[in-house]
Amino acid sequence: MFGMTDFIAAKRDGREHSREELAAFIGGYVRGEIPDYQASAWLMAVYLRGMTDRETTDLTLIMADSGERYDLSAIEHLKADKHSTGGVGDKTTFIALPCAAACGVYSAKLSGRGLGHTGGTIDKLEAIPGYNTEPDFERFADTVRRAGMCVASATASLAPADKLLYALRDVTATVGSLPLIASSIMSKKLAGGSDAIVLDVKTGSGALMKTLDDSLALARAMTVIGNMAGKPTAALITDMNDPLGRFAGNAPEVSEALDILRGDRGALEAAPDLREVSLALAAKMVELSGIADGNSASRMAREALDSGRAYEVFEKMITLQGGRLDEFEASLAGGISRRVIWNGAEGYVVSVDTETAGNACVALGAGRRRKGDSIDPLAGIEFLRKTGEYVKRGDVIARLICSEYGRERLPYAEELLISAYTVAEEKPSPRKMVYGCIGTDGEFREI
Amino acid sequence: MFGMTDFIAAKRDGREHSREELAAFIGGYVRGEIPDYQASAWLMAVYLRGMTDRETTDLTLIMADSGERYDLSAIEHLKADKHSTGGVGDKTTFIALPCAAACGVYSAKLSGRGLGHTGGTIDKLEAIPGYNTEPDFERFADTVRRAGMCVASATASLAPADKLLYALRDVTATVGSLPLIASSIMSKKLAGGSDAIVLDVKTGSGALMKTLDDSLALARAMTVIGNMAGKPTAALITDMNDPLGRFAGNAPEVSEALDILRGDRGALEAAPDLREVSLALAAKMVELSGIADGNSASRMAREALDSGRAYEVFEKMITLQGGRLDEFEASLAGGISRRVIWNGAEGYVVSVDTETAGNACVALGAGRRRKGDSIDPLAGIEFLRKTGEYVKRGDVIARLICSEYGRERLPYAEELLISAYTVAEEKPSPRKMVYGCIGTDGEFREI
Repeated sequence: MFGMTDFIAAKRDGREHSREELAAFIGGYVRGEIPDYQASAWLMAVYLRGMTDRETTDLTLIMADSGERYDLSAIEHLKADKHSTGGVGDKTTFIALPCAAACGVYSAKLSGRGLGHTGGTIDKLEAIPGYNTEPDFERFADTVRRAGMCVASATASLAPADKLLYALRDVTATVGSLPLIASSIMSKKLAGGSDAIVLDVKTGSGALMKTLDDSLALARAMTVIGNMAGKPTAALITDMNDPLGRFAGNAPEVSEALDILRGDRGALEAAPDLREVSLALAAKMVELSGIADGNSASRMAREALDSGRAYEVFEKMITLQGGRLDEFEASLAGGISRRVIWNGAEGYVVSVDTETAGNACVALGAGRRRKGDSIDPLAGIEFLRKTGEYVKRGDVIARLICSEYGRERLPYAEELLISAYTVAEEKPSPRKMVYGCIGTDGEFREI
Repeated sequence: MFGMTDFIAAKRDGREHSREELAAFIGGYVRGEIPDYQASAWLMAVYLRGMTDRETTDLTLIMADSGERYDLSAIEHLKADKHSTGGVGDKTTFIALPCAAACGVYSAKLSGRGLGHTGGTIDKLEAIPGYNTEPDFERFADTVRRAGMCVASATASLAPADKLLYALRDVTATVGSLPLIASSIMSKKLAGGSDAIVLDVKTGSGALMKTLDDSLALARAMTVIGNMAGKPTAALITDMNDPLGRFAGNAPEVSEALDILRGDRGALEAAPDLREVSLALAAKMVELSGIADGNSASRMAREALDSGRAYEVFEKMITLQGGRLDEFEASLAGGISRRVIWNGAEGYVVSVDTETAGNACVALGAGRRRKGDSIDPLAGIEFLRKTGEYVKRGDVIARLICSEYGRERLPYAEELLISAYTVAEEKPSPRKMVYGCIGTDGEFREI
């Protein structure tokens, strides 16, 4: 018989769990035989004592197997998954996946909703009238087969052990544990059934991991799991010290992604950072699938975007999932818009605290303060000044957007957003968007 | 509003809690507003991060105030409490408290039952037919006033927060945390209402703390709490590498204590260790109450014992609590007795693993394997060979005692007991019974 108290004591004393012990714990917990108060003592012991790569990989695989695994074998194409650790203005999924699909690397992507200051891909897609984020498996697989990609909501049967443990971590101050974060993310990716996994680990003021060291550690932990589990996995480390692109918010982000995919010159000039990160992710998906080496993969991804073939993929997916793009674009004209005027000292923007900017966006109604809150799809922010750009008193640094019922929150969001800006006399050195990549060999290389 | 997740995170990160935060936690937990799964994550954080003396003292006082505090002010005499961390054959309460009372230092002692391999004072007293271990407060106080002492069972209203937390620690591998052990013990002592507290911290193979370093750390943690809470508190560090005296078990221990109190020459010669530790504790109770300095206190305690005045105190307490000593002594003749013969190599006993010896005693029926098990008051062990004594093949090293229904457990207990003995050619150096004392100034001094 499995002794839960001994199991807790072992981790408390820094010992390593066997795969059998971890399986007994997860099994017992999911069946409700192990109470929350024992699981939470173990979680705190893991937080403070850590886990080895082997333990973390075992835990991940056990959680991945705690529910249904997606079987994508009927889709003959190569399939790569992409996951971002979350940021502000991060709509790369809508650009990178279509590019990869146009190169022959398909995606069957399961996503989540936004929580905290970061957005969620499912919330963004639901800004498109008619888009079905909860198709049954047949329809999901059919859209992947016909469009080259599909993005849908993760179902309750995907890694239910992770769902239970995550809820417990949330209320016991054990969310921020590296092996627990890594195994939580990777259990869902492995259950998702793709052949290869590209991770986008954000670093900076708007990221889960604020420092490069922490971001590298998380990237390393996740790539180790993926590769030990037999799925080629690589992680790009990308910048999140500034919102990505010019727009944050659900409809505003989908709209910006559409502009980039359509080759709109204004959008491409305004958001070179978004284009760069999206293409780097698409290229890594192509490279990891073994179709081409690094340089060719980058060229292929660029051509997929520039030729408009990526746009065709994205449009087809939306149509097959019931989305009505014309109606979506008409809806963008609605809503209230308020200009945010700079009243501080003149100079260069040296930083935009991106978590604060994300919180301003949530305040407008683009995100949830509590689980179950409803969302205003129109709400968001257009950033007219970003890091490195010059600002004078009286300049419009941003535009706040919301529906009528968000009007009273405009002054608070404005104040919050202004507080995120820091201005100085000296021009900051140009931002690097992609710091580098941790490859399948576990080595970090600059790109 | 008190944020429990922030409270857990603070301890997780090694920060110090304020008194207000600790009070909010304990209050919320006792009222059932804070769930077990949050409390247990905090307990594990405390286990791994520790607590400062100030935090531990605050926690102790808050737990002491979570229920009813005994108000002993109506008893005009000085009152000292004594607490042992538990051992095998430890019947010092029945000798030390009567000696102290005969010197003018009264005791209103609340005790517990045995759990694990150690005995419990309440179980021992219940071996005396008629002894009421659960008097109401009036009767309890009256016995203290008239006899000079009373020993009774701790009620449910004494430090209920400790009771709840202890039960949670038991199932979450967080029992062995020094500040949690110290605050648990001291919360009950402080709620008990005495003027001074003498702690008997056992060290050795039969003790909670097996090493001298750990025992000193626990003693230090407890004395700091007592003295910071304004009660003069000292701790003797005494040996538990051998059973104390010659008898373990409930009736057998009461009987041995009576023999020592009555000045029985055979018992005094057989158990000089028991006499020494009991007198040291009594002397410390007298000294701490301010009646006499160390040397005088020792002399007073000795005279109280040798004169028979201590016996009178103990007899009076038993009578006032309804106990029938004649019936008790008649009961000792009953039961089965089995001699344990030594079949190993000839030599000196160099150690008796005291936890194993205690488990043999429990196996005979003297203790509980599970909470709620019933007890055989007669069951126990007489140790005819102890550490430092010579043993030859065929010698009787011990005598097992039990009632008829314990007969089938005799072979197992015998095997267990024999396994506890280690014999070698060389005579071990004489045992030191009292290693020293941590005084009210926190300093350790040899005695």
